Amino acid sequence: MAVSFRPSGIVTLLTDFGLKDTYVGQMKGVILALAPMLRIVDLTHEVAPQEIDEGAFLLGAAVDAFPAGTVYLAVVDPGVGTARRALCVVSGAAGFIGPDNGLFSRILPAASAAYEIVNPDLLRQTMTATFHGRDVFAPVAARLAGGLIAPADVGPKIDPATCIQLEPTVRSEPGEVSGRVVSIDRFGNCITAIAPDQISALGTPVEIQAREFEVDSIGRTFADVATGEPIALIGSAGTLELVVRDGNAAERYGLTRGEWVKVRSFNSGVGNDRESR
Amino acid sequence: MAVSFRPSGIVTLLTDFGLKDTYVGQMKGVILALAPMLRIVDLTHEVAPQEIDEGAFLLGAAVDAFPAGTVYLAVVDPGVGTARRALCVVSGAAGFIGPDNGLFSRILPAASAAYEIVNPDLLRQTMTATFHGRDVFAPVAARLAGGLIAPADVGPKIDPATCIQLEPTVRSEPGEVSGRVVSIDRFGNCITAIAPDQISALGTPVEIQAREFEVDSIGRTFADVATGEPIALIGSAGTLELVVRDGNAAERYGLTRGEWVKVRSFNSGVGNDRESR
Amino acid sequence: MAVSFRPSGIVTLLTDFGLKDTYVGQMKGVILALAPMLRIVDLTHEVAPQEIDEGAFLLGAAVDAFPAGTVYLAVVDPGVGTARRALCVVSGAAGFIGPDNGLFSRILPAASAAYEIVNPDLLRQTMTATFHGRDVFAPVAARLAGGLIAPADVGPKIDPATCIQLEPTVRSEPGEVSGRVVSIDRFGNCITAIAPDQISALGTPVEIQAREFEVDSIGRTFADVATGEPIALIGSAGTLELVVRDGNAAERYGLTRGEWVKVRSFNSGVGNDRESR
Repeated sequence: MAVSFRPSGIVTLLTDFGLKDTYVGQMKGVILALAPMLRIVDLTHEVAPQEIDEGAFLLGAAVDAFPAGTVYLAVVDPGVGTARRALCVVSGAAGFIGPDNGLFSRILPAASAAYEIVNPDLLRQTMTATFHGRDVFAPVAARLAGGLIAPADVGPKIDPATCIQLEPTVRSEPGEVSGRVVSIDRFGNCITAIAPDQISALGTPVEIQAREFEVDSIGRTFADVATGEPIALIGSAGTLELVVRDGNAAERYGLTRGEWVKVRSFNSGVGNDRESR
Repeated sequence: MAVSFRPSGIVTLLTDFGLKDTYVGQMKGVILALAPMLRIVDLTHEVAPQEIDEGAFLLGAAVDAFPAGTVYLAVVDPGVGTARRALCVVSGAAGFIGPDNGLFSRILPAASAAYEIVNPDLLRQTMTATFHGRDVFAPVAARLAGGLIAPADVGPKIDPATCIQLEPTVRSEPGEVSGRVVSIDRFGNCITAIAPDQISALGTPVEIQAREFEVDSIGRTFADVATGEPIALIGSAGTLELVVRDGNAAERYGLTRGEWVKVRSFNSGVGNDRESR
Repeated sequence: MAVSFRPSGIVTLLTDFGLKDTYVGQMKGVILALAPMLRIVDLTHEVAPQEIDEGAFLLGAAVDAFPAGTVYLAVVDPGVGTARRALCVVSGAAGFIGPDNGLFSRILPAASAAYEIVNPDLLRQTMTATFHGRDVFAPVAARLAGGLIAPADVGPKIDPATCIQLEPTVRSEPGEVSGRVVSIDRFGNCITAIAPDQISALGTPVEIQAREFEVDSIGRTFADVATGEPIALIGSAGTLELVVRDGNAAERYGLTRGEWVKVRSFNSGVGNDRESR
């Protein structure tokens, strides 16, 4: 049975292309040539070059803000031009178009269907081996978002479980949950994928620690502490983040992407054996 | 009496969120979900983090370029999650949505009405304490720009004079007008808020000076001087700016935001007592 | 005879304004005020300040992605406010609006008509001497893309051959073709304007060299070599580029814009006399 898809008319873009070059603009040209009425929204083009894990997190954190039927075009694609598959994934009421390399790790667990993009009629006539964002993914996303094709038109149905998944960035143990810093935002806030319910399962009080960053409660907003003071809170992405009010937590504490953040039940008796990368 | 507002269908965005993260994209998702036909224009997202004064200047300088009925959504909001008010200001034929922290300092003097945003029906259902740009301001701006609500629907009418105003960045004294550098653009041009009529009130000749930058007339365009030479002119914002032709005035003269620029009547007899920060 | 122009409803923008300031946003405000239904696409605003040659290359490489009838508004304009002409060029089925300073060098050889913009009715009422992007080019581009004017309405017809052309960035000699690095993208890939047919005319094998970068064949995609290895290939712009897989060729080999890249027929017997800048 073919999965139905009712487009909202919105296509979002997430890439590691940056805005210095015209790559993103060219993708938009291809999209508007095929479906002139689409609304195109940039999620970000500043994913660290070829950092699939950061792209996967940023994509997963953004989808809640968009209406059902949105098509998410995502390209962080170091394997472009190789045999890596091109995917169309339907998850919730949304469509996801991009490479099969882990970029959809946070989407796939809820996927209702996945298809491999192989239909040559849907691709750009002039194909390059290096810019599938423009030549493969943009035209497919435009047609899907414009209601010109159904997901099943792109190629054979595949099992979502066969798609590449990144290693989890959160681990739970008794009395403790650890999560990597998956993104550092413009303000230096260090964002993990640790969910509120994983923290509340530990009971209170808890201690949150990463290198020299150390606080003993979860705050509500930046202004809960004085200027320059550290605070851990559930941030805009709906997950735990480490913040310095009116400051830069990443710089202050030397935290980089990949660093482990530990949330420990204060009664767990775990000592000060800090883990470093 | 309720203030009427006839939307142009355009929403502009000005924030200090940067483009590295998906914050701006998420705001756009919320806006388009509520009013899919709106046109969204980015003014800038590179206001220096939490620098309300720079945001206020950049916002004020941009409004002339847009048609009547445009809604300006502005978020530079270090006090997010505190008791600071959320505002809907009507000024000229335009609407302004953002925090009450001085960001609307250049708009408020001409405001015809102001309202505090409190109506819970207009806010995003999933609220965070840290991202009111997405959860409070975006849905209100979308509804106002989409003609779905009137300004008075957001909450109680308030006196614009009660809204926070930043300290003025221009001072006039006999024979002299001084203004801070309120923004430094990509080219290193140092922009003040000093208006042409404040300069012409001094008569001619005048001397313009900031640290080692020193010229004795107001030029018309960059090419009035040789490459590498300094010039002061009325720039794109309609105010005085200090420029080095084909160069970077900020770097050359060590000028930073906040620095005072003095325009002196040449006949005022004032000596070389330079003011530094 | 007037040249006809059937607009696609798309205006693209390419400037050196950056995104830190509101200059680009103001141009969009002017455009949407005149023609609210236009779709505006940013090509890039990160052309190196006043580097006309980079702008010319980036513009030329992007046009293939857009439908016929697109209007390209391009502003890299160190001579703003001087007597340099303002142009409307029709080339292929597209319109180009910007200064006469070489920015349209890659467009002009195929131009079917060119006009000098002088009609005062088409300009912004409030004119500055420093921001023709907003005050001259944006309103003309909006009206042309919106079907409100024909190219001939902007002013007198001029001979495209009288428009300023940049020096060529590719030279062919027997057994060798050389091209400057015209752009370096976010990944550090060094892009030349050398076309595939100029390389195939050399026969095989060929040697590609720039400073210490040296390979002896044209690859197909990044993954043709191991991580960290150099490769030369026909890139997304359709021209020769020098790449380090999952690395940064510009940094690795100290290549900057303007550097010469040589492609030599391997049988030409040319020795190792490397050319440096």
